[in-house]
Amino acid sequence: MTYDLWYWDGIPGRGEFVRLALEAGGIAYRECARQPGATERALVDDMQSPRKHPPFAPPYLVAGRLTLAQTANILLYLGDKHGLTPATVEGRYWTNQLQLTIADMVAEAHDTHHPIAASEYYEDQRDEAIRRAASFRNERIPKFLGYFERVLQARGDWLAGGRRWSYADLSLFHLVDGLLYAFPKRMATVSRRFPRVMALHARVAGLPALQPYFSSGRRLPFGDGIFRYYPELDGD
Amino acid sequence: MTYDLWYWDGIPGRGEFVRLALEAGGIAYRECARQPGATERALVDDMQSPRKHPPFAPPYLVAGRLTLAQTANILLYLGDKHGLTPATVEGRYWTNQLQLTIADMVAEAHDTHHPIAASEYYEDQRDEAIRRAASFRNERIPKFLGYFERVLQARGDWLAGGRRWSYADLSLFHLVDGLLYAFPKRMATVSRRFPRVMALHARVAGLPALQPYFSSGRRLPFGDGIFRYYPELDGD
Repeated sequence: MTYDLWYWDGIPGRGEFVRLALEAGGIAYRECARQPGATERALVDDMQSPRKHPPFAPPYLVAGRLTLAQTANILLYLGDKHGLTPATVEGRYWTNQLQLTIADMVAEAHDTHHPIAASEYYEDQRDEAIRRAASFRNERIPKFLGYFERVLQARGDWLAGGRRWSYADLSLFHLVDGLLYAFPKRMATVSRRFPRVMALHARVAGLPALQPYFSSGRRLPFGDGIFRYYPELDGD
Repeated sequence: MTYDLWYWDGIPGRGEFVRLALEAGGIAYRECARQPGATERALVDDMQSPRKHPPFAPPYLVAGRLTLAQTANILLYLGDKHGLTPATVEGRYWTNQLQLTIADMVAEAHDTHHPIAASEYYEDQRDEAIRRAASFRNERIPKFLGYFERVLQARGDWLAGGRRWSYADLSLFHLVDGLLYAFPKRMATVSRRFPRVMALHARVAGLPALQPYFSSGRRLPFGDGIFRYYPELDGD
């Protein structure tokens, strides 16, 4: 079965966490909103079509008659179905727990540039963004990355332990990638305190299963999505 | 087995979503930080003790040798173990998806009073909070509650369908409860547009299984947690 993945075209966004799992897992999927001729309207129309399990927002994955939304939920499903977590019961919950912690940090990274309203322009909440980003850089980045560093210290190469990546490793890779893009100065200062996190980032970047994707041109660059680079939001 | 639930004492917080599932499910648990003689330090100490699956933050649930953190993950586990979701595979993912959407709204409700930094006083981000709360009241409350209204319209009495509540129903009840507390004016205006959501709120409030908890005095009142009442953040 080929999955249908629905997400906005033009930004990696939350869709990228799902894409990385599909790509690294060698799982067939079609990116519906990025098919030739697809318009942004196609996603809006599809999302509003009646279905048993309606999504609140993209990304969502159509698996036959099942529609799954919420990034962590999609990954939980793909993990179960395609063995992208340790095979133990406790490994599944643990990977889900890690993913939800990653998702929390992703949401906070987004809010650094939109602390007031997602619906308003950055320029109209720039002053507030500068304050929020300072707190994110100084308090939240060390707290979250310090947590993942301790996990890796206890478990070895991969967050869920064992000898193979789980989808949480792929997500942490993308999160760190986004932080390096959005906060290059801060990450240059702070990343040396998290050598295991940075090593995981490099390890995922080098996964053979992901090389075709990375070189395909299909991986969208950062830009106006969750991770944005505004020099005034970065700092040592 | 009696579960150990760890959460801050004094506020309902995210712990309350777990408590409601435990209480409604008739599941034995001990609230560790609220035992006689327990101090706030007890939670901090316990959280920092070495364990295989360390939590990033409370709440977390200790189930024998397993520690589970992240509210939605704890509920997924309890749902699986104690039948708090429809018994089908798709029902499990759907309930998880609903729970994650509820969690998103809960996080946004929190950020109305702390849009800049969770570590700073409300008074030091009051102006920003007023702006963020306006966006939350006007755009986000209708968007989220409208979504749950449509789900209930399609599925009947309970979010996951069927004749019995799932943990997502309990969580939506608590979320609406929090919104009624924090935004009484706004909810008075807007709640008539979401009759099914409000009926679900009343239905959960009347669940026989929850009455002993509600009358026990153990259910903590809202106050300085996620849902806070500041008159300047409310409005029609």
